[in-house]
Amino acid sequence: MPTATAKESEIDVLIIGAGPAGLMAGNALARNGVKVRIIDQRPDRVAAGQADGIQPRTIEVFQSYGLADRLLKEGNQMHMAAFYNPSPDGGIELTDRVSDVTAESARYPFEVTLHQGAIESIFSDSMRSFGLEVSRPVVPTSVHLSDDESDLNDPHAHPIRVVLQHLQPNNQAETEIVHARFVIGADGAHSWVRKSFGIEMEGEQTDYIWGVVDLKADTNFPDIRNKCAIHSNNGSCMIIPREADKVRLYIQLDSKGPHVTSNGRIDKEKLHPHYLLEEARKTLQPYYIQTPEKFDWWTIYIIGQRVASRFSVKDRIFIVGDACHTHSPKAGQGMNASMNDSHNLAWKLTHVLKGWAEISLLKTYEFERRKYAQDLINFDKQFAKLFSGKPRTEACQDGVSHEDFLKIFQAFGGFTSGIGIHYAESSLTSQKHQTSAKNLIVGQRILPQIFLRAADSRPVEIQDLLPSDARFKVLVFTGNSSNLEQLKKTWTVSKELDKLFSNVAAGRAMFDILTISSATKAEVRYNDLPKSLWSHWSKVLIDDTDLKGVQGGDGYRKYGVGSDGAIVIIRPDGYVGMIAPLDRVQDLEAYFSGFARI
Amino acid sequence: MPTATAKESEIDVLIIGAGPAGLMAGNALARNGVKVRIIDQRPDRVAAGQADGIQPRTIEVFQSYGLADRLLKEGNQMHMAAFYNPSPDGGIELTDRVSDVTAESARYPFEVTLHQGAIESIFSDSMRSFGLEVSRPVVPTSVHLSDDESDLNDPHAHPIRVVLQHLQPNNQAETEIVHARFVIGADGAHSWVRKSFGIEMEGEQTDYIWGVVDLKADTNFPDIRNKCAIHSNNGSCMIIPREADKVRLYIQLDSKGPHVTSNGRIDKEKLHPHYLLEEARKTLQPYYIQTPEKFDWWTIYIIGQRVASRFSVKDRIFIVGDACHTHSPKAGQGMNASMNDSHNLAWKLTHVLKGWAEISLLKTYEFERRKYAQDLINFDKQFAKLFSGKPRTEACQDGVSHEDFLKIFQAFGGFTSGIGIHYAESSLTSQKHQTSAKNLIVGQRILPQIFLRAADSRPVEIQDLLPSDARFKVLVFTGNSSNLEQLKKTWTVSKELDKLFSNVAAGRAMFDILTISSATKAEVRYNDLPKSLWSHWSKVLIDDTDLKGVQGGDGYRKYGVGSDGAIVIIRPDGYVGMIAPLDRVQDLEAYFSGFARI
Ligand SMILES: Cc1cc2nc3c(=O)[nH]c(=O)nc-3n(C[C@H](O)[C@H](O)[C@H](O)COP(=O)(O)OP(=O)(O)OC[C@H]3O[C@@H](n4cnc5c(N)ncnc54)[C@H](O)[C@@H]3O)c2cc1C
Ligand SMILES: Cc1cc2nc3c(=O)[nH]c(=O)nc-3n(C[C@H](O)[C@H](O)[C@H](O)COP(=O)(O)OP(=O)(O)OC[C@H]3O[C@@H](n4cnc5c(N)ncnc54)[C@H](O)[C@@H]3O)c2cc1C
Repeated sequence: MPTATAKESEIDVLIIGAGPAGLMAGNALARNGVKVRIIDQRPDRVAAGQADGIQPRTIEVFQSYGLADRLLKEGNQMHMAAFYNPSPDGGIELTDRVSDVTAESARYPFEVTLHQGAIESIFSDSMRSFGLEVSRPVVPTSVHLSDDESDLNDPHAHPIRVVLQHLQPNNQAETEIVHARFVIGADGAHSWVRKSFGIEMEGEQTDYIWGVVDLKADTNFPDIRNKCAIHSNNGSCMIIPREADKVRLYIQLDSKGPHVTSNGRIDKEKLHPHYLLEEARKTLQPYYIQTPEKFDWWTIYIIGQRVASRFSVKDRIFIVGDACHTHSPKAGQGMNASMNDSHNLAWKLTHVLKGWAEISLLKTYEFERRKYAQDLINFDKQFAKLFSGKPRTEACQDGVSHEDFLKIFQAFGGFTSGIGIHYAESSLTSQKHQTSAKNLIVGQRILPQIFLRAADSRPVEIQDLLPSDARFKVLVFTGNSSNLEQLKKTWTVSKELDKLFSNVAAGRAMFDILTISSATKAEVRYNDLPKSLWSHWSKVLIDDTDLKGVQGGDGYRKYGVGSDGAIVIIRPDGYVGMIAPLDRVQDLEAYFSGFARI
Repeated sequence: MPTATAKESEIDVLIIGAGPAGLMAGNALARNGVKVRIIDQRPDRVAAGQADGIQPRTIEVFQSYGLADRLLKEGNQMHMAAFYNPSPDGGIELTDRVSDVTAESARYPFEVTLHQGAIESIFSDSMRSFGLEVSRPVVPTSVHLSDDESDLNDPHAHPIRVVLQHLQPNNQAETEIVHARFVIGADGAHSWVRKSFGIEMEGEQTDYIWGVVDLKADTNFPDIRNKCAIHSNNGSCMIIPREADKVRLYIQLDSKGPHVTSNGRIDKEKLHPHYLLEEARKTLQPYYIQTPEKFDWWTIYIIGQRVASRFSVKDRIFIVGDACHTHSPKAGQGMNASMNDSHNLAWKLTHVLKGWAEISLLKTYEFERRKYAQDLINFDKQFAKLFSGKPRTEACQDGVSHEDFLKIFQAFGGFTSGIGIHYAESSLTSQKHQTSAKNLIVGQRILPQIFLRAADSRPVEIQDLLPSDARFKVLVFTGNSSNLEQLKKTWTVSKELDKLFSNVAAGRAMFDILTISSATKAEVRYNDLPKSLWSHWSKVLIDDTDLKGVQGGDGYRKYGVGSDGAIVIIRPDGYVGMIAPLDRVQDLEAYFSGFARI
């Protein structure tokens, strides 16, 4: 209980929980220079197990924070998905092998698998370079949000009072009081923050019980390094190959068995990994799998598919990750969705705290992410049902056929990869001039594409020039700047953009400009373009193939931009915000005035 | 002078000089577990200037040591070469832009430019991870090689006695005596080691004088970020864009001028960078270039094109790098050739020291590298002459035309990039079965190619599976292993290779096997192949496109391997050593018995 002597302090953002969602938020905010703290009740970070699949879109997001190199170095890559079904002789046989990732535009056409502890380390090491460390073990004991309207509307106020307990080895605790402008509840499925504000989870527990076991597998199964969905007459099993030659097995468990108590509840104590492996062996017949010397990790997992009724309290308290939605692990969505919640929220908080945006901008967090979570649940329900169902065989004609399964697997490919995430029309996403760059879908992430730097013909992936640094990126497609007529237009655009920048409170600090000409590498002169359209020579690009003719080129066509050019606004999180013809800069001004402070 | 109390020690290899050549040798040997020391007379490493261009083949070599990532992260890339010539109005104009690298098979189709100090740091950091540091400032004061034949033929003997002086701040020196099995003289153009053994430099000093200046250039010259060869009526100039927005200018200087004394010698003291810049300005007209606040580095450079008469003394003392060959800096060869000498030598020393190879293997170092150095000089002479010549104009009809220049530039592209290096037939390169993989030229480096890992369909560049770890790589192209007939042959091959391995003194330790099937990703079962052909599942590859159909495939055809398969031996330095049909494993045995201990 707080005493009169408890330490008191003020902070911009307090993050409760340092799992994937909390760490993503902490890293992004610290990188943006926001005053942030992050606490966790665990004395140490996760060492093994839990989630481990990073989807293609999440890899792109990692890259935007400069974290993909390490992820790719440490992780395993899943390129192929293999499907096994009952064979006529009672075992299983290979039915099909397909690409694990079906989203066509994925820059990284695979999933990365790496245990959650390693993923958390990537974030905590990065955070540390920005001066932020997780305080642990620390728990909040009370949280109070002011209901004074003037406080709530004043971004400089600290309307949230949180009492923290620093747990000590001697079972004593030290109390601290924190006054925060914003709180992020990233405290997992049993979220204390969520419960503190009485937010309901909507949806239901399913009765699919899955055992999970991580091991190094000595086996003659030929697809042990591919993602496998195995349907046998003895049960279903999923294989996820992992880093360092490890493999995860997801095993469908009977609702009867040693792990189920007489009153129908799960008894984890009764669940030995040997038992899980035994179940997997039945499914994998005729292939063998040896018992390893040790099991790296195991758990039992009951699928809950639920979404919180609200994701925020008065735009001051936000919940992210498992705290506001849970999914079956089968489609590998939980951790990905969790991190992407924070990715969506962090730049918005930054803008409000820097005085760049109105506080109302924060409403778009729930608007965008709750809809996504619901869509995910709907998908998950279909997928989990199919996955847990009996395979169709001679004897079982109403079972799930491979064709049904594959159809769902592929139809939802854009969705499961995260590539297809689409934020609906709002103050942040204006479809007004969608036709000016018709393949850059407003509300979706920008399509990866290789352009050349005009000054030195070096090929660059445009996504690499769009870091998650809280700035809006203004992509000026000039058309062919070697053409004098078109070059003149860029001078007008440059003046109008200067005006736009000077009209917002943030000024140029909120923007980064990339200029993309359709001139060729043989003729382009990057310094012919107006200087205010390129803060550095490396930011003038051309749409041409590299000198070997293998990379780049055709970007205007792929993006659906005509020879007249266009301006494309990319949000700080990499999603297309708005598009305008070169002569409609005033419409961009209207867009920004919808949320930016003037 | 050594006293009775001088410290004495034994070492396998003593490297004298820690420039690019010495560091490459030190890193490679330390990585291979050889007992090695490296000394340098300078108290600190190079901070700026000197050489700075890493050629495409050298980047591949860096990659084979795991050092390319950092090189690419820190360095600038030159993709484009631009040519400027006199314009009718007295200034210069763009004549042409072409790919800087013309070697078709270059994996990295560009040059990396980075100052020599940064390149040296990459090596010294890597060396440190293997426990090796440069001892400095230390100089050798005497070296003596035994002439006892039995000592010289015994790889365990230490026939070299070197006296070292550790220089102290107080101008005193501490003396040490080192007994070495081998010495590498990597002590630069004025090599003490070379002179100690009276080795002559053959060739002559040229009279081309070049000034070199490094600066951040504020200019309106549109090709400032491309490599430029500029011929004007006021002189010639070469531009090399560098890391961190720096630029190097190479400026042709008059044989008269403030830098030339009355008796025709260069006076460096008279040479201000301002003067160099002024000369460059004359050439660059009508473009401006501002005087920077500071110049990063400058020098004056006289082209010497010489090769040492011998590269070794009794196969115990070796000289590498500038110690045995010097070149004009124009084609950026000096540092590259230097590092590649050591790359060639290091694995051979390793094999002898580990008792894997006969000492006679070391003769191939001079055989291979001296010929290369001579070819380089011949090329360099033509190139430097062209470069330093007057441009052809109306008034000067016997000047150098752009067409002449471009022809040489492109004709020698394979050569300057290092990609075309070709070691002639010797005990290490047997052309006997060249036709079995007709595009993998024996004596050239293995062509880069993307294959898929059979077990998980992940695309991999084959060069990445051929690290510089002193092992010979045995590439078994099995043909289509899904075909039972062909699979049976691989079982025979596997038995015969086992026999070969057991017949050499080193055993399997000297080899790594990669197995490359032409089966498709849909049907392949990596574990059908005999276990002794894959030490790990990641070492079974297939020749198929990746799941998006953009990378890989067609490797058998590109390599010229038929459906019958073939075995390709890659030397530890990445060069093709020998090829054999699957049923001629005995010819490989003959090849290895030419140098390996039995
Ligand atoms: C045992 C287990 C097994 C799982 N297995 C799988 C799997 O096999 N496959 C899969 O895809 N997903 C699995 N998941 C789900 C996956 O781990 C989550 O989707 C993902 O971690 C969500 O990230 P998050 O940051 O929102 O929540 P979490 O990772 O749960 O992180 C929440 C953090 O908040 C901390 N915290 C909680 N309450 C408080 C508090 N009151 N005060 C301070 N700190 C607090 C916790 O210590 C934790 O560090 C598993 C989860 C668990 C717990
Ligand atoms: C001043 C200068 C300018 C240059 N400019 C260019 C350029 O503009 N462009 C270009 O391409 N190349 C240039 N070079 C050449 C390029 O640096 C060399 O080709 C390259 O460094 C060769 O590498 P190396 O290791 O063989 O020799 P070096 O780099 O010369 O290294 C030799 C090392 O041995 C040490 N050493 C010498 N004698 C002894 C001794 N007795 N005892 C102990 N240590 C000793 C030296 O201190 C040095 O560290 C320049 C070289 C110099 C010296």
